[in-house]
Amino acid sequence: MSSKIAVVGCTGAVGIELVKCCHARKSVFGDAPPDLYASARSAGKTLDTPYGPLTVVEFNVETLKAKAYDFIFLAVSGGFSLENAIPLTTNASGTPTYVIDNSSAYRYHDEVPLVVPEINFDSIAALDSKLIANPNCTTAIAAMALYPIHQEFKLKKLIVSTYQAASGAGEPGMQELLEGCKAHVNGDARPENKIFSHPLPFNCIPMIDKLQENGYTKEEMKVAWEMKKIFGTDDIKVSTTAVRIPTLRAHAEAITLETEKDISPQAVVDCLKGKPGVVVEDDPANNVFPLPLTCSGRDDVSVGRIRQSLIFDNKGIDLFVCGDQLLRGAALNAVLIAEAIVTKK
Amino acid sequence: MSSKIAVVGCTGAVGIELVKCCHARKSVFGDAPPDLYASARSAGKTLDTPYGPLTVVEFNVETLKAKAYDFIFLAVSGGFSLENAIPLTTNASGTPTYVIDNSSAYRYHDEVPLVVPEINFDSIAALDSKLIANPNCTTAIAAMALYPIHQEFKLKKLIVSTYQAASGAGEPGMQELLEGCKAHVNGDARPENKIFSHPLPFNCIPMIDKLQENGYTKEEMKVAWEMKKIFGTDDIKVSTTAVRIPTLRAHAEAITLETEKDISPQAVVDCLKGKPGVVVEDDPANNVFPLPLTCSGRDDVSVGRIRQSLIFDNKGIDLFVCGDQLLRGAALNAVLIAEAIVTKK
Repeated sequence: MSSKIAVVGCTGAVGIELVKCCHARKSVFGDAPPDLYASARSAGKTLDTPYGPLTVVEFNVETLKAKAYDFIFLAVSGGFSLENAIPLTTNASGTPTYVIDNSSAYRYHDEVPLVVPEINFDSIAALDSKLIANPNCTTAIAAMALYPIHQEFKLKKLIVSTYQAASGAGEPGMQELLEGCKAHVNGDARPENKIFSHPLPFNCIPMIDKLQENGYTKEEMKVAWEMKKIFGTDDIKVSTTAVRIPTLRAHAEAITLETEKDISPQAVVDCLKGKPGVVVEDDPANNVFPLPLTCSGRDDVSVGRIRQSLIFDNKGIDLFVCGDQLLRGAALNAVLIAEAIVTKK
Repeated sequence: MSSKIAVVGCTGAVGIELVKCCHARKSVFGDAPPDLYASARSAGKTLDTPYGPLTVVEFNVETLKAKAYDFIFLAVSGGFSLENAIPLTTNASGTPTYVIDNSSAYRYHDEVPLVVPEINFDSIAALDSKLIANPNCTTAIAAMALYPIHQEFKLKKLIVSTYQAASGAGEPGMQELLEGCKAHVNGDARPENKIFSHPLPFNCIPMIDKLQENGYTKEEMKVAWEMKKIFGTDDIKVSTTAVRIPTLRAHAEAITLETEKDISPQAVVDCLKGKPGVVVEDDPANNVFPLPLTCSGRDDVSVGRIRQSLIFDNKGIDLFVCGDQLLRGAALNAVLIAEAIVTKK
């Protein structure tokens, strides 16, 4: 049976990946392409997709409700989601429409599940919610590596420093980086910046998203808030420094963790082995470790540089993770939520 | 009175900065330019310097000993330093020659002082040594921000994640990054790499220097070994993840620290105020924080994003530092050691 799917915000970096991820799971969702929606500005455009050329339709909440979709993916602003996400969960025919929202609008609402399907898929049924929030990219990528460790060794503390790609600011962010690099190699030492607060080429910017009262940015606090909600615990202390670096679409993170139980690098390797969505690449003597370039376009999160902590000794580990920001950090995670709903119900 | 100075390894990225730093301190060292030495391959070349054009002479240990220099700066490999640094401390006339070595060859020798002049200049007299080791760049940059904090609040733990520039691999590293970026923006997604273990453009590489038995790299362990030696304590636990990013010449570091005494962001700002070689740039609401682009070519280390730790609470701080790798991380620190010897003796 085929699923009826809509992608709202289909022209953005995440929207484009959503369509590709659906196509890669035709065996689950069926051969029919998703319907593509965007703002009036993009309506009528034709997009090249793996399904062939598809035409963009202007978003209108009533149009979508009338279509009785099984799944609506929102790759839009938080404000747009706040206005439309809940109305879209009901439709004309009364069948369930799951709305999977990539914005942060509903992530911290107690009644809305925040889901990494490999970790807490059950929270959707537990909350009996048709609106499902997709996590922040940095959180989702780290969670793939950390949850198996948490299950076996119980996490107490997480110190995270991020190396985040331009794609976190969407297609315009990637374009600004590429054009800025072009200008820089042609002799302009401080190329123009509109998307980022400072020029990103040959720079790194230690501030992402808005400043909070405690001096951390919202991007940094998201990791703490969301990790706890996804893992279902308040007992982990999380501190993050979120830094934008001149990479295109894969985020990396240096993580120091403290556990309740004794832990070792070999125990981490053993514990991650065979876990879905995560792969250990840890042979530094042969220059094998997670890299943004090799993780770009790949579904799995890569984990490497696994070593005993010099701070927390036998109860601590340092490691490095890397994952595609547009895939596990956004589109793939959302589509895997839908896949789990289709295959498990 | 004028100091007689030699720069060995004058054609490299650090060598070039050494000459500039000496020129900037003509009031201390006098108007005469340093003598420039390099390998046979560069001998006879003329370098453009702030003193005007200077000719490179082939290095020969006896030539230098005959010249009775006051200061010899070594910007050469560890192997070269091991062979030549000690012989160079004695000269024909019997006057003292201070050899200031930028390599890691002698940094961990108990009888050789490892010096950041603002912190432990006294260790030169205490060890009565004419050979002085210049610290690793990552260590020297962090130390400028951390030592005043250590003095007032006593550091217990340091967790450091680095964002290191291509200049750490010298001029060839910077060239490879620039040429790789040019190739990348012209369509080559994986430009050639010889200096770095993987292509650096649009990538980050979480491994710098050789792997040690404990799973950390030598670059990561240097921060631990050198911070303790410079601060004169074994009581600080230090863990580092050293990552190369596509920046040109300033290193950045995200640091989480735990202290013995209660500490606050304001107390850190107060404690760093007026300290030599360090400046607080911490107004994130107005996009003011340390940046590699603004720290390049600047003597002072910049500190920002100062916030109360979410891990160590009232006894912890998160902060971000940035400094020019070729200046405080190498040439400037070495020249400031010589300046302190001239002005304090």
